[in-house]
Amino acid sequence: MNKNTKVNAAILIIGNEILSGRTQDTNTGTIALWLNSIGVKVNEVRVIPDLEDTIIGTVNHLRKANDYVFTTGGIGPTHDDITAQSISKAFKLEYEIHKEAFKILEAYYKIGEFNEGRQKMVWMPRNANLILNPTSGAPGFNIENVFCLPGVPSILKSMLGGLQNRIVGGNPIISHTISLRTVESEIAKSLAEVQDNNKDIEIGSYPFFQAGKLGVSIVIRAEEQSKIDKCSEEIFKFVDEKKIEIVDR
Amino acid sequence: MNKNTKVNAAILIIGNEILSGRTQDTNTGTIALWLNSIGVKVNEVRVIPDLEDTIIGTVNHLRKANDYVFTTGGIGPTHDDITAQSISKAFKLEYEIHKEAFKILEAYYKIGEFNEGRQKMVWMPRNANLILNPTSGAPGFNIENVFCLPGVPSILKSMLGGLQNRIVGGNPIISHTISLRTVESEIAKSLAEVQDNNKDIEIGSYPFFQAGKLGVSIVIRAEEQSKIDKCSEEIFKFVDEKKIEIVDR
Repeated sequence: MNKNTKVNAAILIIGNEILSGRTQDTNTGTIALWLNSIGVKVNEVRVIPDLEDTIIGTVNHLRKANDYVFTTGGIGPTHDDITAQSISKAFKLEYEIHKEAFKILEAYYKIGEFNEGRQKMVWMPRNANLILNPTSGAPGFNIENVFCLPGVPSILKSMLGGLQNRIVGGNPIISHTISLRTVESEIAKSLAEVQDNNKDIEIGSYPFFQAGKLGVSIVIRAEEQSKIDKCSEEIFKFVDEKKIEIVDR
Repeated sequence: MNKNTKVNAAILIIGNEILSGRTQDTNTGTIALWLNSIGVKVNEVRVIPDLEDTIIGTVNHLRKANDYVFTTGGIGPTHDDITAQSISKAFKLEYEIHKEAFKILEAYYKIGEFNEGRQKMVWMPRNANLILNPTSGAPGFNIENVFCLPGVPSILKSMLGGLQNRIVGGNPIISHTISLRTVESEIAKSLAEVQDNNKDIEIGSYPFFQAGKLGVSIVIRAEEQSKIDKCSEEIFKFVDEKKIEIVDR
């Protein structure tokens, strides 16, 4: 079956710690690679602070402009965790105790340990669909096309698998990399011609420095293998003519 | 001198390779830490693809909403490097050869090596101010409050120092971290009270897992040391009452 619909998403990283430079975000890469593998293209990423009005405004913009929105961060137990509350307001839904989430965490913690702080994590927008958390109990949730995940990278990773059935992707995007022992300026003109001949393909050029040597990786991305093959052929033609060493084909 | 003005910035990462998850962005952290040190707060970060209309629209939005905008990526020699051209259009300026940049690169390369590909890197918006590049020759540039830097992290880093005199920051933001051997839910309520008592201070709570043990880092950010001290004192008060082990004060 050829699913021709293009499906796209935005990633919204919520957290002052990323904006201050204190914490290096890695969730974007994790979510983007996973989305690619199920045929969803990431259109844009935003990083915003833990401010309610900013979260509400940004979520409401992104959820209309994209098929899916994935947020990370701000669903823990502390005062700076305001994602669930802000999403409730964005969708004009009650912010209330989610009974199923309450049961999950009540069973997860030892008797007496499901304290007030932890109970904050079961407050969600009314009728939220839970995203189960195999690592640390506290679930994420989605409302319509907005999926709210935690900020801790290892926990986020463990939750993506359970989401697969809820995301309807298009054709997976195939990516092929050709690495050459050259510099960008040497191939710029020829590569531009290949791009001109293949307008519906995404061709990126990325210099690298590895084991003391300069090189360029050409990344070809398309939905169809045949298009990638045609494009690669045209690249190898000029590489051959210019006698450029191929590091990885 | 007490500079009371709040100065803020947006970071705009331009590049399909970040959106696809192929490349991990580290430039956000580099720029954010440097901006903090000179009293500029990062309000938001966006990652967008190498698409002219998207770059134009986003730059025009961000440059009006922020004191400064820093872009990374898209100023190299290949066809997918369209930042300079897009910035020209965003500002309605001619896209043309920058004479000073031309001289710099002509002197940088050996005779015969300043080829057509490399010459693309001296095309800029008319009257752009160059940002010198001590690492690899090709300069970045700024137009008004928009500063365009390369995507290669090591080159970007080497160029920030030269920018310091062109950015007028406010009071540097001071950050203090207190690390505790506890879990977030244990301190959530007390920490919320401290935040309530100190509304103009940013207090973040971040769980960590180090050497097999769980902990929480509390990050306090403010422009004045005295406010940080007051806040820390209130935190140590409840930490003491709760008999929580202090990992780092």
